[in-house]
Amino acid sequence: MTPAPATDAVRHHDPAVRGFASDNYAGVHPEILAAIAVANGGHQVAYGEDDYTAHLQGVFRKHFGDKAEAFPVFNGTGANVVALQALLPRWGAVIAAQSAHINVDECGAPEKIAGIKLLTVPTPDGKLTPELIDQQAWGWGDEHRAQPLAVSITQSTELGTLYTADEIKAISDHAHQHGMLVHVDGSRLANAAASLGLPLRAFTTDAGVDVLSFGGTKNGLLLGEAVVVLNPERVRDIKFLRKMSMQLASKMRFVSVQFEALLAGDLWLRNASHANAMARRLEAAVRGIDGVTVVRPVQANAVFALLPREVSERLQKQYRFYFWDEHTGEVRWMAAFDTTEADIDAFAAAIAEEMARS
Amino acid sequence: MTPAPATDAVRHHDPAVRGFASDNYAGVHPEILAAIAVANGGHQVAYGEDDYTAHLQGVFRKHFGDKAEAFPVFNGTGANVVALQALLPRWGAVIAAQSAHINVDECGAPEKIAGIKLLTVPTPDGKLTPELIDQQAWGWGDEHRAQPLAVSITQSTELGTLYTADEIKAISDHAHQHGMLVHVDGSRLANAAASLGLPLRAFTTDAGVDVLSFGGTKNGLLLGEAVVVLNPERVRDIKFLRKMSMQLASKMRFVSVQFEALLAGDLWLRNASHANAMARRLEAAVRGIDGVTVVRPVQANAVFALLPREVSERLQKQYRFYFWDEHTGEVRWMAAFDTTEADIDAFAAAIAEEMARS
Amino acid sequence: MTPAPATDAVRHHDPAVRGFASDNYAGVHPEILAAIAVANGGHQVAYGEDDYTAHLQGVFRKHFGDKAEAFPVFNGTGANVVALQALLPRWGAVIAAQSAHINVDECGAPEKIAGIKLLTVPTPDGKLTPELIDQQAWGWGDEHRAQPLAVSITQSTELGTLYTADEIKAISDHAHQHGMLVHVDGSRLANAAASLGLPLRAFTTDAGVDVLSFGGTKNGLLLGEAVVVLNPERVRDIKFLRKMSMQLASKMRFVSVQFEALLAGDLWLRNASHANAMARRLEAAVRGIDGVTVVRPVQANAVFALLPREVSERLQKQYRFYFWDEHTGEVRWMAAFDTTEADIDAFAAAIAEEMARS
Amino acid sequence: MTPAPATDAVRHHDPAVRGFASDNYAGVHPEILAAIAVANGGHQVAYGEDDYTAHLQGVFRKHFGDKAEAFPVFNGTGANVVALQALLPRWGAVIAAQSAHINVDECGAPEKIAGIKLLTVPTPDGKLTPELIDQQAWGWGDEHRAQPLAVSITQSTELGTLYTADEIKAISDHAHQHGMLVHVDGSRLANAAASLGLPLRAFTTDAGVDVLSFGGTKNGLLLGEAVVVLNPERVRDIKFLRKMSMQLASKMRFVSVQFEALLAGDLWLRNASHANAMARRLEAAVRGIDGVTVVRPVQANAVFALLPREVSERLQKQYRFYFWDEHTGEVRWMAAFDTTEADIDAFAAAIAEEMARS
Repeated sequence: MTPAPATDAVRHHDPAVRGFASDNYAGVHPEILAAIAVANGGHQVAYGEDDYTAHLQGVFRKHFGDKAEAFPVFNGTGANVVALQALLPRWGAVIAAQSAHINVDECGAPEKIAGIKLLTVPTPDGKLTPELIDQQAWGWGDEHRAQPLAVSITQSTELGTLYTADEIKAISDHAHQHGMLVHVDGSRLANAAASLGLPLRAFTTDAGVDVLSFGGTKNGLLLGEAVVVLNPERVRDIKFLRKMSMQLASKMRFVSVQFEALLAGDLWLRNASHANAMARRLEAAVRGIDGVTVVRPVQANAVFALLPREVSERLQKQYRFYFWDEHTGEVRWMAAFDTTEADIDAFAAAIAEEMARS
Repeated sequence: MTPAPATDAVRHHDPAVRGFASDNYAGVHPEILAAIAVANGGHQVAYGEDDYTAHLQGVFRKHFGDKAEAFPVFNGTGANVVALQALLPRWGAVIAAQSAHINVDECGAPEKIAGIKLLTVPTPDGKLTPELIDQQAWGWGDEHRAQPLAVSITQSTELGTLYTADEIKAISDHAHQHGMLVHVDGSRLANAAASLGLPLRAFTTDAGVDVLSFGGTKNGLLLGEAVVVLNPERVRDIKFLRKMSMQLASKMRFVSVQFEALLAGDLWLRNASHANAMARRLEAAVRGIDGVTVVRPVQANAVFALLPREVSERLQKQYRFYFWDEHTGEVRWMAAFDTTEADIDAFAAAIAEEMARS
Repeated sequence: MTPAPATDAVRHHDPAVRGFASDNYAGVHPEILAAIAVANGGHQVAYGEDDYTAHLQGVFRKHFGDKAEAFPVFNGTGANVVALQALLPRWGAVIAAQSAHINVDECGAPEKIAGIKLLTVPTPDGKLTPELIDQQAWGWGDEHRAQPLAVSITQSTELGTLYTADEIKAISDHAHQHGMLVHVDGSRLANAAASLGLPLRAFTTDAGVDVLSFGGTKNGLLLGEAVVVLNPERVRDIKFLRKMSMQLASKMRFVSVQFEALLAGDLWLRNASHANAMARRLEAAVRGIDGVTVVRPVQANAVFALLPREVSERLQKQYRFYFWDEHTGEVRWMAAFDTTEADIDAFAAAIAEEMARS
Repeated sequence: MTPAPATDAVRHHDPAVRGFASDNYAGVHPEILAAIAVANGGHQVAYGEDDYTAHLQGVFRKHFGDKAEAFPVFNGTGANVVALQALLPRWGAVIAAQSAHINVDECGAPEKIAGIKLLTVPTPDGKLTPELIDQQAWGWGDEHRAQPLAVSITQSTELGTLYTADEIKAISDHAHQHGMLVHVDGSRLANAAASLGLPLRAFTTDAGVDVLSFGGTKNGLLLGEAVVVLNPERVRDIKFLRKMSMQLASKMRFVSVQFEALLAGDLWLRNASHANAMARRLEAAVRGIDGVTVVRPVQANAVFALLPREVSERLQKQYRFYFWDEHTGEVRWMAAFDTTEADIDAFAAAIAEEMARS
């Protein structure tokens, strides 16, 4: 191997420091960086007509079935907004959980960029059900109501919970019966598969999902999400929506090759399984600490906990993490693909120590 | 140095093959790849609150002055649409050359994503002038006309031509006198600086430009453009526009560190100067070939030429390039940072050979 | 007076039939029709540069203060969407009651036409309070959240309830303290004034409201609403927003003269007071009928009641009205400016009769 | 007939004064006002479910064929933007003449409200042809180009010229062959029919037009345009687009009855024929005046003329009219349904007199 070339970029951070704020805080998995180097050199057609993007289709089909088509995009908001536009006419609305990322964390991009009205429903655990959907699934044909023509669910959810394959199937069946299409925000879909012990298609394609935002960034990519069309009869024209929505990379080969590195073998599963295991390890560790309550099922790579606010604030001086709910003091701790057992054990020890001081 | 880790990604292309279709066909400069590795490891705050993005401000200010603020985004269309939104109220319009990328190559994103009306002017060489601007600069106060409140120019232009610093200054002065702000689409701004032999600020900040789309991708980045605010009194709130426009990277450190590698030293200038020199070398070579006419001034890294269509079509079997105008048969040949002298010489020889056969 | 000219239009309805479905079902007050005739004949400058629109400013200022500016538009959705656009940057959001017309009855026009995210709050009675507003009033400066920069309330509300002047003042003060502007959807503002016994400005201009959608159609106009700017320092450029939003009438004089007829004298108050009185008469009448429950305070011209669903359905064969809540069977009965005492008495008798049969 | 009721509205204008600025400056035809009175009284279902709108369908079908469906809206910009949205996916563009009202006089509403990119073509006379269309009709399938999927023409044009039925047929055939749909901006369609001596359907439905904006306001209505779907297989869902685009009147009966009065008999043709005749009378009169040149064919109700600018400016003190082109000094004189022969003769005399003074 040739030595790495000099660069004028200087390291500004300590690579030994990790926290629990977000899986987006982690860097790039070494195999992904290596893949980028594989795709480098020479010229490749820009804007997705390259050989890596062509090969990527087979990689995605292995996971999502022979009809799947993958359209790499830049980020999760982009994937969601591109996908939802494909499901909805101009007057359409999408039913989503009140806690959905599209509702709370995208600066209104669905509304502002795509004119999509969100019909939201409060949920106990971030999960929709047919019954909850029915709170907003009405008024078809009445032009005074933005027409509910799609349902969007997040798997795993923003609250660290999971839908079973059967639950997704029930939602899809219910939606389709009412003429609505189904989108999954799968920013952490790999974590869901790892936790469910199921192939990716079992709770997407096979569960009737029409289009998917498949997340790569949180699972070890430098950058990359993909709109995956699972039902090409009903979801069309993504290529126009992607370009128009400013989500078409010129040097697409470097996004596509990352997905190949993630999905051709088992890297996606290794990374996600590890992150999930680290979250469970943290859960187990803190369950033994008096005064700390894990308040939601730990089904993916997130732990939500209640503990005294001043303890959290002292802990934040050592480890980054977020308050999830400023009012209740609930905090969120995320594990990532690069979280180590030692990280967890040290963090748990720090929690115990700070609790003991409180 | 540790060996590169294994990856499941497989090389699908021949890195020895280069063409003349676009500087977007080139890959990543090795110093940029090395910089990405520098920023890897450990956790960094997501969404631009990382240390690399913080440091980047100083790097940009060195080039664009002490008031400059840089907001990295994903791609050129994104940079343009974010920047133009910051210049215009909802009822605003932007005056641009008919050949501007925002008009012809962005799938209508300015109109569709931001509701921006483009008031276009035909130009002989891709360049606006105060006189050409005046064809559309009228009707202020009349609510029947989308209000012309910004001017957008491209430097270097889509036709491979350049504005002098004085020409840009004249446009800015004219625009400002009429209450219009000035945007530069600087997707190839480095090529312009290299060709003009001027610092970047001489024909941007110092020429009265208000906001800039600064291109990195075409000049050797994996991916990355930046909205650079040059006049923060008049251009505000980019951070909201960037997020809302789906252009905020979660692992921003990897975009920012690329820009640092490009701009902290002279890589930006080396790459651009080299691409320009290769275009001039090609121009010089083909000027000697009977039947080939270079039809536009070669001022940056593009050569536009007329030659028999069947010759072009035969050449395209060996080298990728585009017809620029299907009607006239004009072709565009682009040089990139990785184009070699040998590439140029071989291509020129092939042109000569095919011309001899025609 | 000259005889009415012949017309090829044929009467298709029975003008003796009135119902309780909506004040939009009523026709045009005769004084309004007469006013339209006053403005007819000869030529007047189009698009609002006419003498009637000029005079109208003084009429509105009499009611709303010397700084008020009125911009007639076509309908209530148009008024709301034009007004809200003036309050919000592209990334702005508006806090509103879940039951607000802008949220439930405008086909998503705020989102779809103006890209406005609605941050909604469930309310017991259709009314926001500072406390309820605070459920959504947070996250300023965080670009991941559409920025809450306006509050919209409806007076009288969609549930027939009223804000007091003090309540509106408290909302305005609270909003302004947080940098948010205040919009009132005053589709039935006249009914509110009549019921409160206050001048219009007492609970708008004087209560700190920044911009108002003032309703004419429901109070006897053929067609016409107005965006009324109460705080011209903070609410600007309505004329561009109105045209761009397709709400600028060419023969504006005929919209403006209706407002003059409504507001120059006391027609606005006569109409609204009468409608309110008819609602109260209906409330009084049904309070005496066993099995009919008036479920909301009758503070304007709406009565909401619970009665057996089959009774409602039998009544609907005689009188048009709507179920408000399909689930509970709650019905809404609206009085209009042309509802008569005899209408009320006959309707109440029919209710009593049908109840007796159930 | 009962005497007209008192109104607080005061006459602010001199009904004897007419000018030549616009057919929008005229008032309401007396038969139209009478029709409004016919529809008044009693309650009618709001939002287009009334008996007048129901009857209107038959009236429109008499003119446009058995498949036509009419959707009354408020104004021409609204009609155009609603109609074009029905023709285009989110990434669609419409080919139009540079002089089209949608391009120059709607404050960018097509772009801003509907995200529609206009691909414009300069024309000598305001008319597109298949050849002119081909300047923009290309690039299908290329996601970098907003897809040209509709053609919009204006009949009669903004320049007072007419398409023959065959010309429209040729445009429709050409458009359809390329997968594009056809919209006619028929703000002055009645004037075209009167001048061509053809039924309305001969150059719309029968010429392959898919959707029409049919103008009423300029031809004597108080207010009212209609989106008329001529090809319901390809143009759908107008009702949602109309409501979402803020163009649905609550008291729709009063818009619909005006159209009935206009179209059930021959009022539409009487008004338009008269306006056309007055324009021709003016043309004939000024052709005899030295120094005044009629610069475009007078085929509908507009006369475009060149005369010394100072003469025009002196004339404008007596009669309102507009400069059409500030640069050349070209003026536009419009005749309306209420323009009298005496008006024309007096105006022509004034022109002659002012010319004599110059």
